[in-house]
Amino acid sequence: MRDFTMENLTEIVHEEYVSKTSDPRLREIMGSLVNHLHAFVKDIQLTEAEWFEAVQFLTATGQMCDEKRQEFILLSDTLGVSMLVDAINHPRSGAGTENTVLGPFYVSGAPDLPMGSNIVKKDSGGTLAFVRGKVTDQDDNPIDGAVLDVWQASVRGFYDVQDPEVPQWNLRGKFTTGPDGKYCLATELPGFYPVPTDGPVGKMLNACGRHAMRPGHLHFVITADGYDRLTTHIFTAGDEYLESDAVFATKSSLVGEYQACEDEALAKEYGLQVPFQLLDFDFGLMRT
Amino acid sequence: MRDFTMENLTEIVHEEYVSKTSDPRLREIMGSLVNHLHAFVKDIQLTEAEWFEAVQFLTATGQMCDEKRQEFILLSDTLGVSMLVDAINHPRSGAGTENTVLGPFYVSGAPDLPMGSNIVKKDSGGTLAFVRGKVTDQDDNPIDGAVLDVWQASVRGFYDVQDPEVPQWNLRGKFTTGPDGKYCLATELPGFYPVPTDGPVGKMLNACGRHAMRPGHLHFVITADGYDRLTTHIFTAGDEYLESDAVFATKSSLVGEYQACEDEALAKEYGLQVPFQLLDFDFGLMRT
Repeated sequence: MRDFTMENLTEIVHEEYVSKTSDPRLREIMGSLVNHLHAFVKDIQLTEAEWFEAVQFLTATGQMCDEKRQEFILLSDTLGVSMLVDAINHPRSGAGTENTVLGPFYVSGAPDLPMGSNIVKKDSGGTLAFVRGKVTDQDDNPIDGAVLDVWQASVRGFYDVQDPEVPQWNLRGKFTTGPDGKYCLATELPGFYPVPTDGPVGKMLNACGRHAMRPGHLHFVITADGYDRLTTHIFTAGDEYLESDAVFATKSSLVGEYQACEDEALAKEYGLQVPFQLLDFDFGLMRT
Repeated sequence: MRDFTMENLTEIVHEEYVSKTSDPRLREIMGSLVNHLHAFVKDIQLTEAEWFEAVQFLTATGQMCDEKRQEFILLSDTLGVSMLVDAINHPRSGAGTENTVLGPFYVSGAPDLPMGSNIVKKDSGGTLAFVRGKVTDQDDNPIDGAVLDVWQASVRGFYDVQDPEVPQWNLRGKFTTGPDGKYCLATELPGFYPVPTDGPVGKMLNACGRHAMRPGHLHFVITADGYDRLTTHIFTAGDEYLESDAVFATKSSLVGEYQACEDEALAKEYGLQVPFQLLDFDFGLMRT
């Protein structure tokens, strides 16, 4: 019978999974998983105490999860895995707006709002901002009927689902373009904020000397018939965490430069008070 | 500012962890983890749907754990990681008995029993067995005061903690050697059994075409002052799962050959009924 040793164990376990798994894609995944996982354990010569600490860490990470909290996504985010999966699945060759992570705070079913609406449902003392632009295809033609699903954290750094003091759908909304492809909305400048630090991932970041902050950003998921879904952010230029996003999701093409604006006509058209911060940002979608 | 791409992301994330983690060992572990985890994701070109399935699998694995069930240890076992960690931490160079996994059913505090005791507290209809041998050092000298902590599954394939129909400490006990280093105990032949299959790991095994069975075995943790702790099994020769242990823990040196025995004198000395199965198995400990 076989004797398992450090020399042959990986090969035997790999062969066991590869030879018995009938689904070809699962076979590929399990074979690769065994090889990489064993290589990691050998590389660092994992001790039994460390192995048990890893077991406890993973267990606590699973047990931190509920309907509002996904600690394994946070772990994936903070280890750069979410961004890597994004890069693999959304390669951009200079055309179209770049993708970035969805993040754990997306909620489907946000209200459809008339173009130009203000998504602030409760004033948190933030700076008024007006964001506008157009949604176009690769040839710069406007896209009619593109739906922009927008959400963001308040100036205090919380999404509505984290903050019992704001109503549901605060700083969320869906906007649908017309034939000109244009969109616009009023909001407040998004705040930088820490990812949740009261769980195992927070302990990991702390032990590794990393801060938990994300630079302020607006989230967008933009969909239109015949086009690839675009999941992205607009980061706020000048944010102090732009160079050290805890989840590695920043891209220079996704930084928006807000400008102080005192345009009375614009303010009047959308019911705003001058001065406000104005951002022009266009999105390019790719045909499927 | 930096743009994260598939080409540079791993290097940047690696550098972030390696440059900021102050503890040298944690730095080594995190650096290696980032490299291997990213290599795995790139190797298989993980899709977003697969990534989310992995998140859900890990979450369910954590949520399956409680004081009696450790699904992440089971995952580690079934991927051969536990055995790899064992091999790394307990290299044997021909001297001393080989180590194998502890398994998830060890319970500390088993009762101290007189040598020769029967650890069957409730008869499950198993085959009577008598196990004996000696505990020696590298030079074959008997070790006085070695403690053998023994536990096993019944013929029905359950440990006491899994089986509400048997009393606590059924098939468990601690035996301490005298100056002759000898040990002996009566028990029943251990049954083969499946690792728990009602959780995520069971689903994984099933999807991968692997059975969940472990060959029958007695567990031993043997400790003695001045010697390395020995964690091992005696597997039952002839068991049908000896070649395909679900957790890869078998070693040929750990297979015990039980012999039918009708020795009336031995039976009388230990209060046994002939015939019974007799196993001679010696343990060698290594000096620390």
